[in-house]
Amino acid sequence: MSTIREVAKRAGVAVCTVSRVLNNSAYVAPETKERIEKAMEELNYIPNELARGMFKQKAGIIAILVPNIKHPFFSSLANHIEQYLYEKGYKLMLCSTAGDVEREKAYMRFFESNMVDGVIMAVSNIEKEYYENFNKPIIMLDYFVNDNIPLVVSDHKTGGRLAAQEFINNHCKYVVHLCDEGMVNDVISYQGHLELERILHENNIKTRKVEIKWNTFDFLGFKNLAQTILEYYPEIDGVMCADIPAVAFLNAASSLNKKVPDDLAIVAYDGTYITNMQERKITTIMQQFEKFSKTVVDILIKKINKEPVENINIRIPVIFEKGDTT
Amino acid sequence: MSTIREVAKRAGVAVCTVSRVLNNSAYVAPETKERIEKAMEELNYIPNELARGMFKQKAGIIAILVPNIKHPFFSSLANHIEQYLYEKGYKLMLCSTAGDVEREKAYMRFFESNMVDGVIMAVSNIEKEYYENFNKPIIMLDYFVNDNIPLVVSDHKTGGRLAAQEFINNHCKYVVHLCDEGMVNDVISYQGHLELERILHENNIKTRKVEIKWNTFDFLGFKNLAQTILEYYPEIDGVMCADIPAVAFLNAASSLNKKVPDDLAIVAYDGTYITNMQERKITTIMQQFEKFSKTVVDILIKKINKEPVENINIRIPVIFEKGDTT
Repeated sequence: MSTIREVAKRAGVAVCTVSRVLNNSAYVAPETKERIEKAMEELNYIPNELARGMFKQKAGIIAILVPNIKHPFFSSLANHIEQYLYEKGYKLMLCSTAGDVEREKAYMRFFESNMVDGVIMAVSNIEKEYYENFNKPIIMLDYFVNDNIPLVVSDHKTGGRLAAQEFINNHCKYVVHLCDEGMVNDVISYQGHLELERILHENNIKTRKVEIKWNTFDFLGFKNLAQTILEYYPEIDGVMCADIPAVAFLNAASSLNKKVPDDLAIVAYDGTYITNMQERKITTIMQQFEKFSKTVVDILIKKINKEPVENINIRIPVIFEKGDTT
Repeated sequence: MSTIREVAKRAGVAVCTVSRVLNNSAYVAPETKERIEKAMEELNYIPNELARGMFKQKAGIIAILVPNIKHPFFSSLANHIEQYLYEKGYKLMLCSTAGDVEREKAYMRFFESNMVDGVIMAVSNIEKEYYENFNKPIIMLDYFVNDNIPLVVSDHKTGGRLAAQEFINNHCKYVVHLCDEGMVNDVISYQGHLELERILHENNIKTRKVEIKWNTFDFLGFKNLAQTILEYYPEIDGVMCADIPAVAFLNAASSLNKKVPDDLAIVAYDGTYITNMQERKITTIMQQFEKFSKTVVDILIKKINKEPVENINIRIPVIFEKGDTT
């Protein structure tokens, strides 16, 4: 592989002139530029992006930290974010905590000391202090950290309201909803659960909150849980939960000869492709992955370029999609 | 943020001595090393990995190029590869062609000129010439390029045989199998289709090959296709295809009041979590994602470290898993 020095020599210019052309950093006379480009072509010179990155203080890479790559929610999100980043000239580095706090910390250190221009956090189980001296532009999804860090989140409060309305329309009497273990107000999606409970209680509908292990991906575990809940509380006639447990409830109802939606109304929260891939389409509160991803990318790139960001607390609307389970 | 110069100054050593400690590149007296580490701590110095990468000629990043991040096959694969890479001290850069050849070429150029130590190709629609002068360690999954590039692939020939055996056991008379449009012998998984046809024909079972648009992810499209095939060829009583179209066939059979497995035996090829997430478990030929991923990571890291690799043409066994659809 040829070097920048060889290019400079063949073009009869100084190395810094080649560097100017590569980085488009200062004026170079058109005829000189042409000579340099010809020399690059003849020598089959590939600019060393690593070196250019150092020079420009830009790596062209954005990291996203998720709890699980395989999970359809995060793989759908990463898919759209990658598309928008690619359009903007950035590559995506996809990292997973695999639910491990130590790994989350290790990645935070890596991002800080390494060659990424910005970070998207789709998980946050570390102490908030970690963010205080973090030296890279960062965007939080669904987790509130502090007023300085942009937050992009689906409008979960409306999501909870739409689900509640659907249970009311289905004349439900007792609705169970599954939420993550230890979910607190920092996790914005919890607001959907609170809103669901508030409205159902106003309408004299009983609710039961069941906490599940955070970010598990164990379908058979969910199926057993669904079956246990439905057997233990036979009067339950409505359930709101994420897509994968919603499918598990659909299967468990079938095993227990409960009719959906007459005996059990199911509302899935998220609306990944999983909900379309069943023998019956599941009613869902859909998060808008495309709009969500575009917003995240736009704000992060503004932060990287030190451009002003007007609104750093953004709610993306959710969409109610009626299926066959309500 | 403090610099290496400030660290050197505070420790009373030369910058290159600090660099030696950072990169563990040459002997530094223990007391000097301690002084430098103390200075780093006091100054809250974060080594610039970008600079270290240049120095060590190692970025600590492996790229994987897939056709679609969202697809459960590739997200499952990326999930396991990321885990193994993390254990080995590497981060994963996940890139997607989104089915676009130009994007594939652009990524190849990016990988070559940029800060990745090695590349895993889970897609390949470009001309083979692109690989000839590629300057990074590379591993192909499922696509044969040439005898110098390691290839890791599931044992699809056995996969085809196991599926054929299951159709024979189910007394099928006419089996349809879906494969990607323009699939040729370079794509190793095509061998599974050839083996399926060979064995079925030997047993006087009719077959029909249906080519589908490469790497589509459109479930409703698959469902329409499945319904059309089953209506147009009512004598079809067996189908082998990837997981997502297999689910589509299961749904289409239900819509057409065909009993599974009596009227239609379904074998899904891949065995992602999708096949477990239906009201009925689908019979599958499973690719072993964990074993597959571990092998890929081991070989790539050997190539990066210029260690000898004994076998560069590796077949990973597939597993037959009986479900309720045969």
